[in-house]
This record gives sequence, C-alpha cells and structure tokens, in this order.
Amino acid sequence: MQRDQSDFDELTTPALLLDAAKMARNIDRLADHARGLGVTLRPHLKTAKSAEIAQCLSGGVSGPITVSTLAEAEVFHAAGHTDILYAVGIATQKLTRVQALRDQGCDLVVILDSPAQAAAVAREGVPALIEIDSDGHRGGLFPDDPALIETGRILDANGALRGVMTHAGESYNVRGKVAHAKFAELERCAAVTAAEALRNAGLACPVVSVGSTPTAHAARDLSGVTELRAGVYVFFDLVMAGIDVCRTDDIALSVLTTVIGHQPSKGWVMVDAGWMAMSRDRGTATQDVDQGYGVVCDAKGRVIPDLIVTSANQEHGIVALCPGAAGPMPELPVGTHLRILPNHACATAAQHDRYNVLPAEGGPLKIWHRFGGW
Amino acid sequence: MQRDQSDFDELTTPALLLDAAKMARNIDRLADHARGLGVTLRPHLKTAKSAEIAQCLSGGVSGPITVSTLAEAEVFHAAGHTDILYAVGIATQKLTRVQALRDQGCDLVVILDSPAQAAAVAREGVPALIEIDSDGHRGGLFPDDPALIETGRILDANGALRGVMTHAGESYNVRGKVAHAKFAELERCAAVTAAEALRNAGLACPVVSVGSTPTAHAARDLSGVTELRAGVYVFFDLVMAGIDVCRTDDIALSVLTTVIGHQPSKGWVMVDAGWMAMSRDRGTATQDVDQGYGVVCDAKGRVIPDLIVTSANQEHGIVALCPGAAGPMPELPVGTHLRILPNHACATAAQHDRYNVLPAEGGPLKIWHRFGGW
Repeated sequence: MQRDQSDFDELTTPALLLDAAKMARNIDRLADHARGLGVTLRPHLKTAKSAEIAQCLSGGVSGPITVSTLAEAEVFHAAGHTDILYAVGIATQKLTRVQALRDQGCDLVVILDSPAQAAAVAREGVPALIEIDSDGHRGGLFPDDPALIETGRILDANGALRGVMTHAGESYNVRGKVAHAKFAELERCAAVTAAEALRNAGLACPVVSVGSTPTAHAARDLSGVTELRAGVYVFFDLVMAGIDVCRTDDIALSVLTTVIGHQPSKGWVMVDAGWMAMSRDRGTATQDVDQGYGVVCDAKGRVIPDLIVTSANQEHGIVALCPGAAGPMPELPVGTHLRILPNHACATAAQHDRYNVLPAEGGPLKIWHRFGGW
Repeated sequence: MQRDQSDFDELTTPALLLDAAKMARNIDRLADHARGLGVTLRPHLKTAKSAEIAQCLSGGVSGPITVSTLAEAEVFHAAGHTDILYAVGIATQKLTRVQALRDQGCDLVVILDSPAQAAAVAREGVPALIEIDSDGHRGGLFPDDPALIETGRILDANGALRGVMTHAGESYNVRGKVAHAKFAELERCAAVTAAEALRNAGLACPVVSVGSTPTAHAARDLSGVTELRAGVYVFFDLVMAGIDVCRTDDIALSVLTTVIGHQPSKGWVMVDAGWMAMSRDRGTATQDVDQGYGVVCDAKGRVIPDLIVTSANQEHGIVALCPGAAGPMPELPVGTHLRILPNHACATAAQHDRYNVLPAEGGPLKIWHRFGGW
C-alpha cells in the first residue's frame, strides 16, 4: 500500500521496510507453481530469519523449511518447525548442536559430500542428504563420482541416508526463463541421476531435493524430484529483477532513508543509508544494468526514474542520476524520505534487526524481529 | 598470542576473533603520534561499537569520541562518555534524540553543511561543526563557499557554532606515507582556512577537527588543528595494509572458520565463512593486490602463503590459491580451523554481535559484546 512521507516520521532512518502485500504475492506465486509441479516446497529461511515470515511462508502451519545456520534451526524449531534441512556442508564439530535439536524432537537433516563427513555423521545417527554438484558452482559430488556410492553406503549402514540435494547457483548468472529452465533441468537431471545411482547400488534414497530462486520459478517438469527449495523469492531484489525472475515492482523489501545533504555541483544528494544499511552487495554490477547500491523510490515506493545510489560509505549513501541519464535531478530537500530497493535482499536484510512491516490490510506499521548469528 | 586448533573448539564457527595485544599496539601507535603532533585524539567508534574497546582506546578513562549513529552515541554515553561528535550530516528529524542526550548531560555535537540545517539546529540550541570539503570525497562546503559564513552566522546567532571538521576519504585511494601526508595537509589546509574565514567574519571557531586513518598516521604538522579523528586503525585490515598504513601482521581482527568440504579438481577448499561472516566488502579489488574476500591464516594466525578466499556465498567461502600462485595447495582436511583476515574491518565486524577476545596476557577467551543498529 502507498504511504505518505508523514507515515514514517515515527521511524529512525535508515530503517528496513517490508511490504506485506507484495511478499504475500511472491509467496503465493511460488507455492502455486510448486503445487502444479507436484513437489513439496521447502522455503529457505536464510533470507528472512524471522519467525513471523516463516509462518507466512507455510500458510500459518509450521511446514518444512531450509536453513543456513544452526542458529536458524534453533530459532525456527523453538517457533514450532520440526522438519528442517540444514543446507550447508556439515562441520563435524557442529554435530553436538545438531544432536541436541534432534533429541528435542526436531527432524534436523544435514548435508555432506565426502566419506569422511559421512562416517562422522553416521556415527552420531544424524540423517543426511548427499550434496550433488549440478553446475560446478560450489560443493557436491558429481552423480558419476565413485565417492557418491561410497558415501551413501557409509550413511546407509547406520540408517543415516535420507537422499540427495543440489543447488544450481550458476543460474543467477544467466538471464531469462529459457536459460533458467535449462538450469532447472540440470538440477533435476543431476539429482535424479544420483538418486538412481544410489538406488541401483541397493541404497534407499527417498528425498530428491533441488532448487534456487531462478530455477524454482522456471522449472517445467520435476519428474523424480520430491522437493523444491528457494529463498530470496519471498522478497525478491534488483538482482532477481535484472535476470527477469521478477519485476522491480515485485520487490517487497526497501530501506527508508532521509536526505542529509547535497553537493549540487556534482549532482549528488547525500542520504543516511550507506553500506551499513544496504550492505556492500553489488550484485547488479555484473548484470546488464548496474544499479549501484540500489534504485531510489519516493516515500510511497514509486521508482524515481534514473535515480540510484551511486556510491556508499558506512553511513552515507550518494544518490545521483545513473550514468547516461538526461535528468533533470529532482528536488530533494534535506529531510526528504526516500526508499531504496536492494541489490540483494539476503544481504540487505542481514544489516537490520527488525522488519518495519507495512500490513497488507493497511493500518499502522508492525515490527517483526529479525535475528542473526550462527 | 598464538593458539592451537584445540583452543577454539569451544567456539561455533564462523566467529570473530580479536587479538588484544595487536589492538593495544595499534592504539598506542596513533595515541603517541597524536601526542607528538600536539592534538587531541578523538577515536571514531563506528569501527568497534563496543564499550570495552572504547575504554581501551581512551586508556581506561572516558575520553572524547566520534560516532556515526545516534545508537552509538546513546550506548557510549550510557558507558560514561560525555564528549561525543556525531559525524554524519544531521537529519533534522533526529534532533529530538540529540536533544534528549544533551539533556542528560552529554555534550553531543552534530555536523552539517547547509544554512537550512543550521537554522534547524540553531533553533534547538544544539552545537555543531560545519563540515568542510577537503578532497571532493563526500559532503561539506569548500572553505571559500559564501554559504560557509552564512551557515556560521546562523549557528553563531544562537551560540551553536562550535567549529569546523573535515575528512579526506580519498586518502584511502592512494598508497604510501608521502601520498597520505599530502592528503593530511589537504585536510589541515581546508579546515584551518575555513576556521580563519569564520574568524575573519567575527565568528568564534574553537574546534578544528580533521582525520582519517591514512592521514592521521601520515600527518607531519597539524598547526591550527585542535583534534584528530580515525577509526579503523584500532583493528587495521587488508585495505589499510594494501596502502601501507600498516603491515598485515598488525591486523588485530580475523574470522575463525572451519573447513567443510573440497573440490579437488578445482583446487577449492570450502569453509563455513561466507559473506555473512566476512561482509560483501571487496575493498582490495581496486588495490595493487586483490585479496578476494580475505587472506587465509592457520589457526594460530600465521598467514598461509598465497591462500585467499576467492569467492563467497552467504555461508560458504571458497578458499584457493590466489591467481598466479605456484602452489602446492596445503592439505586442509574437513574440520580444520583457519583464520581469515578481513578486507575492511568496519564491515566485517558489523556482521557479528561479539568479539571473541584473545587477551594480551594470555588465558581463556573473553567475550565483548558488539552492538549495531541506528
């Protein structure tokens, strides 16, 4: 919903704003798509780190989730979630904390990609997915790596083999639905091939988990896959808009800021949102359109054409016309409120400890706590 | 002091480590230099955001400090600091919080660079420094701008003119003491010229404040200057080492991480410190030596030659040999602890809520709280 400048006078800037109506549309869009594909959606909560948003994601019930830290697993388990995938390769020193959560009734599953990790995990009886490399982006075993079967056998011998998972992080580096659909098929193919290899070796592999925000939205067929993961889709951001996964108008997250000065000879407007408020993420720098540290909107959230945050110090942002823009520069007196759309919602949200929520139904701002740490 | 791998088993990685002995040497170095120059040192606490470190900086007493947010002013005032400069251009909406601190006995001074801000500030009777532009980096008035005298008169009429300040942020973009000394002289010259212009107009200008970490260490003569500001020198970082303000061995801050996987065919070691632990800051990317997301050390803090974090996802760092290095890649099994030196200490520290302090006198780790927000 649209708000006037005066609606934000209660907030200290910079402040993180969340448009609940846009978030709800983003959530429904992927939930509908996953339903159509016949797979379970397991949202990745590393983006939101909020118990309230976790509830929004799973329609008020405590559904399956993905996390990137044990701190997330602990908070979301305390909030009622019992089906949790910890999707970062397990450091064996962390198994004590994993086991403590499992002892409390949380079905916490870890991931790994080596026989050494499998031996430590199996010894503790912690269930695991084997990470599969579908695109060379990060970790994981190739489906034809002999270590896959070896790792599977070690887990299976202690009843700890739950399945396989993959993530095509390289899908962020290509643009458009056709390109993303190819990566979705790479994910599906790698995960299903690995699952079949395990099954052919006589090992059970019930879970076949894939996903990233670009591939999740573009996937057309997920035969053989059981679940889909995605994180940043809940808010979207300029990086996702830059590769056509969403429109700029779908971005639910912004940073409210105040004009604190001018350098008229340079066409600069100084605002009180620097990299501490926006993060140092420059994810659009390598895209077709470099959006600096973010796209500038008025206080109601309407994009001001050609205006971006061109550079940032710790608590200063410099707002100017993007290179090549004709102008003119709008009048923005000291004290004016603006909103800045982030390059990368995960990184920008991480700089804040609360969401100032614009409720879908209107009315006063709500505050939802956001946590961090490990 | 040096520690073994086993000393860190109590910590969840990633974890922020602070070497107190190195920090103490960094603090003493600039304190001695400022004393020699005959100026008051006003440390900038935006880097540390810790009451314990504030005490270390001012030798156990609550000395003059600089802050970048009102949250810092409030925390440090509660910790006993009463002489505080808020060195980000004032948004007039924030004057209520400024006044509340002043009413509690805090001599909180703001900065501004326009007659419009001066009118609002003077109306409230809040003392201010006028920001001077010494290098075109950010905000501030040039010393010969007619708006300087106009702004000064508005403040002075209500007894709110405290002086002038400048910051040569461009000094970060040049290398070596000779180059930094030139920027120090630019700062001095701009600030002193502006102060003289105000005095020639019949306005009192008691405070002449300058500084940045590179210029503070390189300044040879600060005639006419009353105080010196610097922030990141307390920890130092790879950006400062890259422009020869410190040595790599002076860097007091690091992130402890654990090896969580390998991609041997690519020469990659995966660790559990991604950009969430290191920040997205890539400050060395434009320096002579690009250190990726940080330089890798063993658990005792000894640099492992040619090993850096070449890329980072949210909770994954990819450690590899830097481009052109001959190798070989060291053996780093899953579970190995490493320390990563940060590009930019302000940004990396901001990703954590505590310092795990290695005491100068040895003995167990201490935990110092670190705060954030605005």
